[in-house]
Amino acid sequence: MAGNSFGQAFRFTTWGESHGPEIGCVVDGVPPRLALSEKDIQHWLDRRRPGRSRYTSQRREPDAVQIVSGVFKGVTTGTPIGLIIENKDQRSHDYSEIADKFRPSHSDYTYWKKYGVRDYRGGGRASARETAMRVAAGAVARKVIGDSVTIRGALIQVGEQSVDRSVWDWGEIEQNPFWCPDEKTAKEWGKTLEAVRKDGLSLGAVIEVVASGVPAGLGDPVYDKLDGDLAKAMMTINAVKGVEIGAGFSVASMTGEQNADEMRSGRGRKIRFLSNNAGGILGGVSTGQDIVVRFAVKPTSSIPRPVRTIDVRGRNTEIVTKGRHDPCVGIRAVPVGEAMMACVLADHVLRHRGQNEAI
Amino acid sequence: MAGNSFGQAFRFTTWGESHGPEIGCVVDGVPPRLALSEKDIQHWLDRRRPGRSRYTSQRREPDAVQIVSGVFKGVTTGTPIGLIIENKDQRSHDYSEIADKFRPSHSDYTYWKKYGVRDYRGGGRASARETAMRVAAGAVARKVIGDSVTIRGALIQVGEQSVDRSVWDWGEIEQNPFWCPDEKTAKEWGKTLEAVRKDGLSLGAVIEVVASGVPAGLGDPVYDKLDGDLAKAMMTINAVKGVEIGAGFSVASMTGEQNADEMRSGRGRKIRFLSNNAGGILGGVSTGQDIVVRFAVKPTSSIPRPVRTIDVRGRNTEIVTKGRHDPCVGIRAVPVGEAMMACVLADHVLRHRGQNEAI
Amino acid sequence: MAGNSFGQAFRFTTWGESHGPEIGCVVDGVPPRLALSEKDIQHWLDRRRPGRSRYTSQRREPDAVQIVSGVFKGVTTGTPIGLIIENKDQRSHDYSEIADKFRPSHSDYTYWKKYGVRDYRGGGRASARETAMRVAAGAVARKVIGDSVTIRGALIQVGEQSVDRSVWDWGEIEQNPFWCPDEKTAKEWGKTLEAVRKDGLSLGAVIEVVASGVPAGLGDPVYDKLDGDLAKAMMTINAVKGVEIGAGFSVASMTGEQNADEMRSGRGRKIRFLSNNAGGILGGVSTGQDIVVRFAVKPTSSIPRPVRTIDVRGRNTEIVTKGRHDPCVGIRAVPVGEAMMACVLADHVLRHRGQNEAI
Amino acid sequence: MAGNSFGQAFRFTTWGESHGPEIGCVVDGVPPRLALSEKDIQHWLDRRRPGRSRYTSQRREPDAVQIVSGVFKGVTTGTPIGLIIENKDQRSHDYSEIADKFRPSHSDYTYWKKYGVRDYRGGGRASARETAMRVAAGAVARKVIGDSVTIRGALIQVGEQSVDRSVWDWGEIEQNPFWCPDEKTAKEWGKTLEAVRKDGLSLGAVIEVVASGVPAGLGDPVYDKLDGDLAKAMMTINAVKGVEIGAGFSVASMTGEQNADEMRSGRGRKIRFLSNNAGGILGGVSTGQDIVVRFAVKPTSSIPRPVRTIDVRGRNTEIVTKGRHDPCVGIRAVPVGEAMMACVLADHVLRHRGQNEAI
Repeated sequence: MAGNSFGQAFRFTTWGESHGPEIGCVVDGVPPRLALSEKDIQHWLDRRRPGRSRYTSQRREPDAVQIVSGVFKGVTTGTPIGLIIENKDQRSHDYSEIADKFRPSHSDYTYWKKYGVRDYRGGGRASARETAMRVAAGAVARKVIGDSVTIRGALIQVGEQSVDRSVWDWGEIEQNPFWCPDEKTAKEWGKTLEAVRKDGLSLGAVIEVVASGVPAGLGDPVYDKLDGDLAKAMMTINAVKGVEIGAGFSVASMTGEQNADEMRSGRGRKIRFLSNNAGGILGGVSTGQDIVVRFAVKPTSSIPRPVRTIDVRGRNTEIVTKGRHDPCVGIRAVPVGEAMMACVLADHVLRHRGQNEAI
Repeated sequence: MAGNSFGQAFRFTTWGESHGPEIGCVVDGVPPRLALSEKDIQHWLDRRRPGRSRYTSQRREPDAVQIVSGVFKGVTTGTPIGLIIENKDQRSHDYSEIADKFRPSHSDYTYWKKYGVRDYRGGGRASARETAMRVAAGAVARKVIGDSVTIRGALIQVGEQSVDRSVWDWGEIEQNPFWCPDEKTAKEWGKTLEAVRKDGLSLGAVIEVVASGVPAGLGDPVYDKLDGDLAKAMMTINAVKGVEIGAGFSVASMTGEQNADEMRSGRGRKIRFLSNNAGGILGGVSTGQDIVVRFAVKPTSSIPRPVRTIDVRGRNTEIVTKGRHDPCVGIRAVPVGEAMMACVLADHVLRHRGQNEAI
Repeated sequence: MAGNSFGQAFRFTTWGESHGPEIGCVVDGVPPRLALSEKDIQHWLDRRRPGRSRYTSQRREPDAVQIVSGVFKGVTTGTPIGLIIENKDQRSHDYSEIADKFRPSHSDYTYWKKYGVRDYRGGGRASARETAMRVAAGAVARKVIGDSVTIRGALIQVGEQSVDRSVWDWGEIEQNPFWCPDEKTAKEWGKTLEAVRKDGLSLGAVIEVVASGVPAGLGDPVYDKLDGDLAKAMMTINAVKGVEIGAGFSVASMTGEQNADEMRSGRGRKIRFLSNNAGGILGGVSTGQDIVVRFAVKPTSSIPRPVRTIDVRGRNTEIVTKGRHDPCVGIRAVPVGEAMMACVLADHVLRHRGQNEAI
Repeated sequence: MAGNSFGQAFRFTTWGESHGPEIGCVVDGVPPRLALSEKDIQHWLDRRRPGRSRYTSQRREPDAVQIVSGVFKGVTTGTPIGLIIENKDQRSHDYSEIADKFRPSHSDYTYWKKYGVRDYRGGGRASARETAMRVAAGAVARKVIGDSVTIRGALIQVGEQSVDRSVWDWGEIEQNPFWCPDEKTAKEWGKTLEAVRKDGLSLGAVIEVVASGVPAGLGDPVYDKLDGDLAKAMMTINAVKGVEIGAGFSVASMTGEQNADEMRSGRGRKIRFLSNNAGGILGGVSTGQDIVVRFAVKPTSSIPRPVRTIDVRGRNTEIVTKGRHDPCVGIRAVPVGEAMMACVLADHVLRHRGQNEAI
């Protein structure tokens, strides 16, 4: 059943495979009269682009986005925004290996079981290339949300090495190839990943995305809770295996007292919370505090070492994945996580406004 | 915007507040000619019911479900199934305290900011009482999935104490009041929670839900991935702050080699995976292995100790929550997690069949 | 697949069969802080109620609606509004006749073919009794739209006899049992239907529903056009076989010049249209003129004369439908058509506001 | 709110404006392993193409469709099918006239009121050019439905002249430029439209679409009735003002006896209906008879004669629409109506299969 759309009031739908002529996205429900240009979108795509450093894969594509509808004289018209990126780098390959065998921890086997057919070239529809359109949709979502909300993502763990939160500096994020908010850890990751790459290994990672400036009141109880939608948003990103909000899994070992985010009223009756274990969401609705989401990305599954698997005829075999690969796919997931946060917030901004404001 | 429904092909919608006359649910899209009785649903509701032990709250209600539509002569008719539970135990209370003050870590403040009005009696719509209807819907979902799939949940962590997975015994689950698969740990939890209750404290927990016998091929890439829907399903349960699939957050510190679930072909070309880090899902589609989901539940927020907060006029104050409360709300979340797993699977069974089978 | 809901931002879901314990409805997405009582809803239900005159069926039920959730201290809370009507008049019947045979022009045969099972008592889920919940949802929708919009329906044709539009008087509507805006025609219909009833016959009808005061700009091109949603809304009412907007089918024989609704600017640049062939909708979006919808209702299919049919075993037989029946079911469709107009408008008011207004 | 998608299980989303670089469509939920090529889709697009005769507009475009995703080695893969048509014929125009003035009976005014901005070039998003993507989606839908179902459309009325149903010949449809099933009437229309075109006039039309071979059981009561979805499908086509099923509006003047489609059992208990006033649908579910839908299309609104209107500043003015136009837009609506029938049926085939068949 149709499953390639995300969101309700702000809804985007993507299509395209890794090695088809293009990938695309239609963003529907966007308010009219918002300034929007290809440059606005390209800015965010460039941050995600493979080939940004030697720690991400060497597929080199300009990933130049084209707006093909929904914008007229520099502003959105309220009609659907069509976005296209051509696939330039479809290298000629010998696909006989992956055409016949299922790569472990990839979706090769499951697509085969589901559909009885699969486009095996570069992962087909399951390729992380699809996430480029999430980033493009996220760029439009940021326009919907407006400048009062800031969405930033950081890589906070690579393999066993986590950042030192006591020295967290958002300004550091753009200074290293890892979106790492801690200069010292960034350097260590650099060494680790260099070694990992040489050894033909890969590592997992954890990403944290924070949205600041979100007003209280966004989110729709009971089944479209803001955190429910964020959990789905992040879990649908390729290779993600866990999502948590605020204190996340650590709440299990807290007491109710420790977990309680007490409230104080300050000057002008401005509300202040004394902590943010809730991660900015209570009962599925935003509190006005920072919204904090973390998600775990598994290590790159395509590795240049032989692993045991079966072929399409059900016979035992081995496979070695060749070609360009990232030692840590989690790095590139940072801008994707930010984009999904933006899309969820844009959807709930429009949803909230529909139900709650005077016509 | 309308946000009280879950699922697409198998869709349920709930309504009702903690202290209204009744709570209810309509389950739509159910295949016809399935045997279904109130007894079938009551069985699962009884497992969730508060008052099951001294470790869960003392609200004592029969929670007797009535089927008010969609079943004729003992079988489903394909039309919507209406389910109703009357609220019997609406004790007369003095609500002046919670009517005026926001309980920290509850949704009191966020509902107020969103809607400008709230039914403060017993948490209103945000009460965990709503989860009874999830369990009822889950009972119907189990009929849709059929007996070849087994869904079981276990409490695996309370506070700092985790189960010993090496002695995991599903048979133990029903032998203690915690759904604990490890007899020894269950006893320890008993002591801990007794102390916690006496001290007016509460503890968080982690639940694991496993579905066995799910065929390969369920789930819809890209935005309705099976794990995406499970993440949303679990995260929308009251008090949940984190969800993970398979190896979950631990994938961050794995290498690609460690994480790879290698495949072997056995007798009759029957496929076997050598591990299940994927938790039974790859690329958003089931592999045929056990589907393994874990989620973290925060400690009960209502505690009989004073915490700092504000009132509806924005003034500083304190609040002490009185009345019946669970030392660990996570215990009662076990049957709810099972039910949500059932609902997600039922939805994807119908969705898959629609797209993939000959008419 | 789940098909018992209507609307997106303002969404209602109904359940219940003619002879079950109750019918119900949950209205989701309703803005908070709207005054709403059972009396507000009962007012509209009473207009639809069977037994209002000797021209409608003799099933006598109080049809007393209960609000079971979503309203607190007299106002909506933003959470789902549960509405219940008990089925009081479930006369004990001998159903052997309709249990075994398919009544022509009823859904008996199609439900049987679709589901392989059916609740044959009084039409089961396909009974016009379901429309009571449409009227209840419509009452809530009117609160969402507000008093600046007036929705009125009229019966404009019964059998061969149409109203004289030159003497149309909305004040007349409530003065006769037909919602007829023309006193003289109402009297003729009275005589006709008396004869029809005595002869065991039935007649079809046409209803016109007009919404005045709707602002320009409601409706969502391209696939959720306001007229598209109205067409679906009316066509899903039991026994409806045609829907038209404005000049409707008569546009076929017009020229472009005749059809053009020219525009003039008056005092204060107030816009005026010189005609309303468009029925208040252009390009799927409201123009600010009256929205005019008409729909045709087929004659009551249950008639006390023998008609040829087959039984569930596929054998030829005859059937005579006994019991209470309307000589013209179209009469009772008037309040239902009004209600559906209200629901479509409420949905588009919320949808428009979400996309188009500043947060 | 997002409103550019149609269908649920089989869902397509379109984008693009008349004078943008391209129009496009993504078709989601398509079953895998169906043979599909650009040629299959082009076949249906060629039938709709403007410039097919001197009775339709002179915009000459190849309308060459490209499949950009979802098909691999000649078969569908189950992933979303992206379809693109470049806009080749974007003639350079002086748009100052329509940029400032609202063309009566067009959506110029309503888009302006809704969005506060509009792409006025060639009608922008409201252009009938969008219907090309409906035809493309319909071509895919026909593959889903399979060859056992035949969908055919005919023009049955132009201005005052209706076809003679007694000589109806489907074979005649392709022999004249009007999809007219009656040779003699086709000739008369030819003369009429030649005169109309010379006089700068335009005429309305009625189209009939018939689906044969549809099995009994498709359609989902209560709010997603097959006829409800067909009504919406047809009413959302540009310029449509009325939709009817089977006997349609004529049911109003029938008696219950006349309207009853009696049933007989023949050899091998094969069911036969003695008439088809229901148009193949009862209770929202297909009966197995021909599904018969008719819809009325208004006369082309763009006419080369001055009509009174206002400008964007609210001042009175006149407008004369120049350029290429059809004397009867209804002609080109025939393949569009067929396509929408196919899309509705495909959606309900998948929906039915999801709910009703064994996994």
